[in-house]
Amino acid sequence: MSLTAVTTLLEKYGVDPKQIGRLDIGTETILDKSKSIKMFLMPIFEASGNTDVEGVDSTNPCYEGTAALFNCVNWVESSSWDGRYGLVVCTDNFLCRVYPERLVRLPGGAAAIAMLIGPDALVVFESKLRGSRMSLVYDFYKPNLTSEYVVLYGKLSETSYSMALDSCYKHFCHKFEKLEGKQFSISDAAYFVFHSPYCKFVQKSFARLVFNDHLRNANELSKEKLAPFSSLSGDESYSSHDLQKVSVQVTKPLYDEKVQRSTLIPKQIGNTYTASLYAASASLIDNKHSTLGGKRIILFSYGRGLASTMFSLQLRDGPYPFSLSNTAAVMDVEKKLKSTHEFPPEKYVEIRKLMEHMYGAKEFATTKDCSLLSPGSYYLTEVDSMPRRFYARKTKDGN
Amino acid sequence: MSLTAVTTLLEKYGVDPKQIGRLDIGTETILDKSKSIKMFLMPIFEASGNTDVEGVDSTNPCYEGTAALFNCVNWVESSSWDGRYGLVVCTDNFLCRVYPERLVRLPGGAAAIAMLIGPDALVVFESKLRGSRMSLVYDFYKPNLTSEYVVLYGKLSETSYSMALDSCYKHFCHKFEKLEGKQFSISDAAYFVFHSPYCKFVQKSFARLVFNDHLRNANELSKEKLAPFSSLSGDESYSSHDLQKVSVQVTKPLYDEKVQRSTLIPKQIGNTYTASLYAASASLIDNKHSTLGGKRIILFSYGRGLASTMFSLQLRDGPYPFSLSNTAAVMDVEKKLKSTHEFPPEKYVEIRKLMEHMYGAKEFATTKDCSLLSPGSYYLTEVDSMPRRFYARKTKDGN
Repeated sequence: MSLTAVTTLLEKYGVDPKQIGRLDIGTETILDKSKSIKMFLMPIFEASGNTDVEGVDSTNPCYEGTAALFNCVNWVESSSWDGRYGLVVCTDNFLCRVYPERLVRLPGGAAAIAMLIGPDALVVFESKLRGSRMSLVYDFYKPNLTSEYVVLYGKLSETSYSMALDSCYKHFCHKFEKLEGKQFSISDAAYFVFHSPYCKFVQKSFARLVFNDHLRNANELSKEKLAPFSSLSGDESYSSHDLQKVSVQVTKPLYDEKVQRSTLIPKQIGNTYTASLYAASASLIDNKHSTLGGKRIILFSYGRGLASTMFSLQLRDGPYPFSLSNTAAVMDVEKKLKSTHEFPPEKYVEIRKLMEHMYGAKEFATTKDCSLLSPGSYYLTEVDSMPRRFYARKTKDGN
Repeated sequence: MSLTAVTTLLEKYGVDPKQIGRLDIGTETILDKSKSIKMFLMPIFEASGNTDVEGVDSTNPCYEGTAALFNCVNWVESSSWDGRYGLVVCTDNFLCRVYPERLVRLPGGAAAIAMLIGPDALVVFESKLRGSRMSLVYDFYKPNLTSEYVVLYGKLSETSYSMALDSCYKHFCHKFEKLEGKQFSISDAAYFVFHSPYCKFVQKSFARLVFNDHLRNANELSKEKLAPFSSLSGDESYSSHDLQKVSVQVTKPLYDEKVQRSTLIPKQIGNTYTASLYAASASLIDNKHSTLGGKRIILFSYGRGLASTMFSLQLRDGPYPFSLSNTAAVMDVEKKLKSTHEFPPEKYVEIRKLMEHMYGAKEFATTKDCSLLSPGSYYLTEVDSMPRRFYARKTKDGN
């Protein structure tokens, strides 16, 4: 997936692999307990004689894509920058997030999203507007090294999420107020994009921000309907179903205006883990590219365990090829979503069984049947006895 | 080890945990297939109410500590910097690099090295002087997820190392020449510090740089003795034992002057993987602190598989507590080396067997016998059924 995303990005923007000076990968997917995913991508650059490419993998569930992005942007802003582009890849596959059947079957997905970092960008970081929350929480982890299965404590995980969201928003608002000399409220941003494991999650997150605004007297929205919950303690507010219901209800029109469009891809392809926030961002650019210039977007990146940051971007309609409209054209979300294939759940269970069986396997060749893949996609052909991994690419005319 | 290194650094330099705005970990040691090592360190900061700490783990064998260091320095130079300190921890334990007995028993070590990043630093990066080599090579990897053992192809690994060293040095020299308008030679740096898995390796590396200088006509050193090897092809020169022998021999006095002091800690405690380069740097500061001000040091960071960078530092005798002499006093290398304990090889084999048996285990309590640990060290007390990991700290008066 990463080979496909990187190669496609370079081709579609006409960027020579030699122009890449840094490559940052965000992933928790382990192909090897030592070798980073980045090394599997180096052949793309080596083919052009470019091996002087900084950066390695960042790891931390679901959040590492954001960490990789920050690292790459910081590089461009640092004295180490050598004038070339940076590349960020956020990728995870559902191999890494399979839940035991008896426990839960969440809408697991897989994706790789590549982003080009450099001057004349359409995304400008408001880098002083950033609030993070990092804590050791045992709500989600994978201590069993021999299995893909995760240990998940759902209730603890939900509370930790709300607590982290509150905490990041508090830091964020505090920094905004220091910088801008006025109180921040959700009306100060055109759009909000959240880590999107599933859509109800996103709706609840946005409602929680509005409730935060209510507690801070930052806006007048649904003052009466939220008033009965003002006196709840933090813990009470995390577990109050009434608050959740009412706040989701009263924020529905605002959600439709500021959030809903970002849920398109996550809704269609499921939880893509570290790529999820960027799949949501791509959904927004896809739909709103003609009106995004000059707009502020607030993103919330979250990974259980837990790592989270709320940060702010301004969109700027850069020169071709880095204009908003060309970016939407290059991404071609509609075509990609139309080219997905539907299978019955039994097929999913069957494939998962195969994956369980093959996890960590070597000395095998794949069927090389790439009929379901889009033209230009890379696919695994063989894992030999050493074991080394070999890939081929489906040609652009489909062979 | 990381808990000990971070806590000790903060205490010895009198830095409040609240003053830390970023924490970067470089490690390939997997405690959990999802949770990053950084999260296990967050309790140090949470205890002071500081959870707004950016950064996650970087991974790529032996090289990730350097990647983490670069990421943290870039952060301080970027617009995202919030004025607080960054912290970098390079850590690996020998659990992660055990070789099957029949194959090879290299001097495996374990270490955690913490570095404080911020203004008034005693180390200044010459960030334009940097050459990297990144390539996909299957010489060293850990594809077996159920075992700690590594797959190692020794011959390929040796050639890849020499090739990467040549390549980085070439990039480095090229950048130096562009910047300074004159040819670089080893005489332009006071000291060279290498990734130090074992000492012979370091000697050969330095000799290889001198041979590169010879080929580039960059210095007159041992021109006659090296001349017979001038016509070797790259591959021939990598496998020529004569060249290796002669070049190590003729560079011995220069090695003693510019390199030897950095091998003190690696020699005593073995290969510490991603911490190795920084253990070597600490050896140099320990011994040469009184004369290092204003000196240029060239470092070569290397990880099999492969990732490598040659970079340049200038040392500056900053104000207390960040002076060279205080740093040497804080590190107190001599005392640390004196406090190590010697055991017969049988004990090593016995402990390794226990570690193999316990790898990934849960529901156990340790003996809590910390008699061999230095005061102030953290140690594992329990892994419960969830499983969560619990640590305690040996008090400074030794209880």
